Amino acid sequence: LQDQGWEPLVRAHVSVNPAKLKSHRQRWNVRPSEMSKKTLNPIRAIVDGMKLTPNPEKPMIALSIGDPTVFGNLPTDDTVLQAMKEAIDSHKYNGYAPSVGYQKSREAVSNFYSCPEAPLEGKDVILTSGCSQAIELAISVLCNPGDNILVPRPGFSLYKTLAVSMGIQVKHYNLLPEKSWEIDLQHLESLIDDKTACLIVNNPSNPCGSVFTKDHQHKILAVASRNCIPILVDEIYGDMVFPGCDFQPLAPLSSDVPILSCGGLAKRWLVPGWRMGWILIHDRNDIFGTGIREGLIKLSQRILGPCTVVQGALESILNDTPPEFYQGTISFLKSNSEICFSELSTVPGLNPVMPTGAMYIMVGIEMEHFPDFQNDVEFTERLVTEQSVFCLPATAFEYPNFFRIVVTVPEEMMIEACIRIREFCARHYRPRSQDSHELDQ
Amino acid sequence: LQDQGWEPLVRAHVSVNPAKLKSHRQRWNVRPSEMSKKTLNPIRAIVDGMKLTPNPEKPMIALSIGDPTVFGNLPTDDTVLQAMKEAIDSHKYNGYAPSVGYQKSREAVSNFYSCPEAPLEGKDVILTSGCSQAIELAISVLCNPGDNILVPRPGFSLYKTLAVSMGIQVKHYNLLPEKSWEIDLQHLESLIDDKTACLIVNNPSNPCGSVFTKDHQHKILAVASRNCIPILVDEIYGDMVFPGCDFQPLAPLSSDVPILSCGGLAKRWLVPGWRMGWILIHDRNDIFGTGIREGLIKLSQRILGPCTVVQGALESILNDTPPEFYQGTISFLKSNSEICFSELSTVPGLNPVMPTGAMYIMVGIEMEHFPDFQNDVEFTERLVTEQSVFCLPATAFEYPNFFRIVVTVPEEMMIEACIRIREFCARHYRPRSQDSHELDQ
Repeated sequence: LQDQGWEPLVRAHVSVNPAKLKSHRQRWNVRPSEMSKKTLNPIRAIVDGMKLTPNPEKPMIALSIGDPTVFGNLPTDDTVLQAMKEAIDSHKYNGYAPSVGYQKSREAVSNFYSCPEAPLEGKDVILTSGCSQAIELAISVLCNPGDNILVPRPGFSLYKTLAVSMGIQVKHYNLLPEKSWEIDLQHLESLIDDKTACLIVNNPSNPCGSVFTKDHQHKILAVASRNCIPILVDEIYGDMVFPGCDFQPLAPLSSDVPILSCGGLAKRWLVPGWRMGWILIHDRNDIFGTGIREGLIKLSQRILGPCTVVQGALESILNDTPPEFYQGTISFLKSNSEICFSELSTVPGLNPVMPTGAMYIMVGIEMEHFPDFQNDVEFTERLVTEQSVFCLPATAFEYPNFFRIVVTVPEEMMIEACIRIREFCARHYRPRSQDSHELDQ
Repeated sequence: LQDQGWEPLVRAHVSVNPAKLKSHRQRWNVRPSEMSKKTLNPIRAIVDGMKLTPNPEKPMIALSIGDPTVFGNLPTDDTVLQAMKEAIDSHKYNGYAPSVGYQKSREAVSNFYSCPEAPLEGKDVILTSGCSQAIELAISVLCNPGDNILVPRPGFSLYKTLAVSMGIQVKHYNLLPEKSWEIDLQHLESLIDDKTACLIVNNPSNPCGSVFTKDHQHKILAVASRNCIPILVDEIYGDMVFPGCDFQPLAPLSSDVPILSCGGLAKRWLVPGWRMGWILIHDRNDIFGTGIREGLIKLSQRILGPCTVVQGALESILNDTPPEFYQGTISFLKSNSEICFSELSTVPGLNPVMPTGAMYIMVGIEMEHFPDFQNDVEFTERLVTEQSVFCLPATAFEYPNFFRIVVTVPEEMMIEACIRIREFCARHYRPRSQDSHELDQ
């Protein structure tokens, strides 16, 4: 009965209390809100729908989780932990901070990221509960229900999860694997209409591990500029690029396009659980004006910002972490990426794309050579069943027929996983025979 | 021009690129979203609108901020700090936790609050970024735009801030100062209609410092039960009640009404900046069903939960903090409340209401005896100008002609503040003279 829309009926024949004129409920009917129903996490939906039963004879190797801390081989630096303990011992960081963060902590971030072409002050920084809240606030302040945003395909699913829950339409622009996952700029521009409120750029990219050149970013800015679209750039993997490649933040290249750059401690400092994120407001031409800044401040007051202890530690974390720590992480990620790439690029039927940053490799599957499987979800599901190796099917990033490998696992695990993937592919690979060619024709 | 709705005009005479058919913007016009504009914090709005220029001859005493840590006289317990440092040293709490929190931390909370009449398990706990996010998630999962919620007057402003930003209507039910701020139950029930999605109860109360009896809570539950309205109970000040008074959580008294109880470490453990909150799901009659639980989990995935270090410390914080710590805080708050109450209850024109918990006193102003001031905002504004004492005007809690005093300040400051308030009132108090009586008639 609860599901049969009885309410109007009840409304017609009120009521227990004759003194009461208003209608009221006479049965319990508590339903989750539309917004909660619209909050969909595709990764969860896909993974929860998979039968993930590993081969009991092989220990499980999870290459699926974008958390660099799970195997213990990539610990954060002692400086970072020490800064936290000093913040605790100082007894200074237990009370409420301003909702946008302590001024001193905001200035630590602005000093760290300021450069002559894109100067930042404390007022240009909003501290948030992780980069996720940074992205949430940025979308919330720029977009209304009915607007649309442009997001990369393949791309991190949170953009869509947040947008759809707020009634904002999502349009996917293509990244081109053959051009190191650069944006298909023509496709991007073709999607823009007068309801386009924001372009989301993610660089370095999850799930691609790609890093945009300066030249390519100039072209992205040109599209945004001639269509007057502000940019939300997710730079959470900023500076996590391999030797020989430069990370170029977007904002210093912009002459007019206003930019909200989202980042945080999660990846580069290897503490994703601490939920310390930020928005850097770049608006040298005063296009955001006070409206967007005030909007961000108002929105930050809903649940206040990140944990004050982490805020208290922030200045020391940013300024005192030794360069060797960052270099160590990067050379490990590069080395593991090279192992994975060189192993898998000789596997018939697979096409890995060598990354230049972040912590992921995308691997294309020539599905026509794997007739045992309908799609990347089935492919990766069976890879668990037979080889106890779990890679995320790229359908989770709106990009079927690829899977994503996380390269933060210990080296021996990476090697073992590649051996098993090779074995798995060898078993299921079918060359296109003369027969099947004839049948096709 | 930007403000004159030029867009339709531009749309009519596109476009620069002849190959492009879609309309696009030709001028920058980035505006803050409707939601950000609807996110109003009345405390900020009122305080920012006040001329707060203290008397340079008297040091400022702020009795306005609900942060027990600002004066350093109410430090958290060493156990709490030690638990944090151990969590850091364990290196176990740097990665992502599940979005609803570590299972172990959820179980620490459920064990701490479980009781035979209202048993809780780990699955009944959602860890959140402060009690603010707990309240946000609870409102978000229960209410749709167009619904209404019932909130106390006077009451904490966040309920309204969040609801209005989500397009949810707010109806205020009255608390009765003459009945120790109990709910006017008849008024409450008269507000309920078929769009009422949730009743918000706050006990112990901010700003009243009142604590509901068991009997009164039974009556609140009866109203909710016969109207089939779920309850969001904000129990962030739970257990912070003065000796001689009992704190009775709401859920154990409920036989059918499903309850989301919001709480956290902020007040009782004196670490509001750490942003560790929780929702306890009480639903013994399975009225929420799986829908509300799944809705809360989905919503938690938007920005993930609280800082993992605090989550890692949670079990020890809850289990190892010595009872003397809690008792010390409470007896300090009681003593300061008694000082403040007894001082101000003999000030002509003021009517303080003695609290029995939390950390606030509400003081009524007999405005007719203070003709120098239009309202509580002017009264408290001039109290700053003349006496350098800042109390929050209760207009910020939708309750004009009162002001709120925070009793967490050091005792000598409390005494000095009361002396100054007395002096201020003596200067501005006007007894109703015979003349004015005659004029009135």
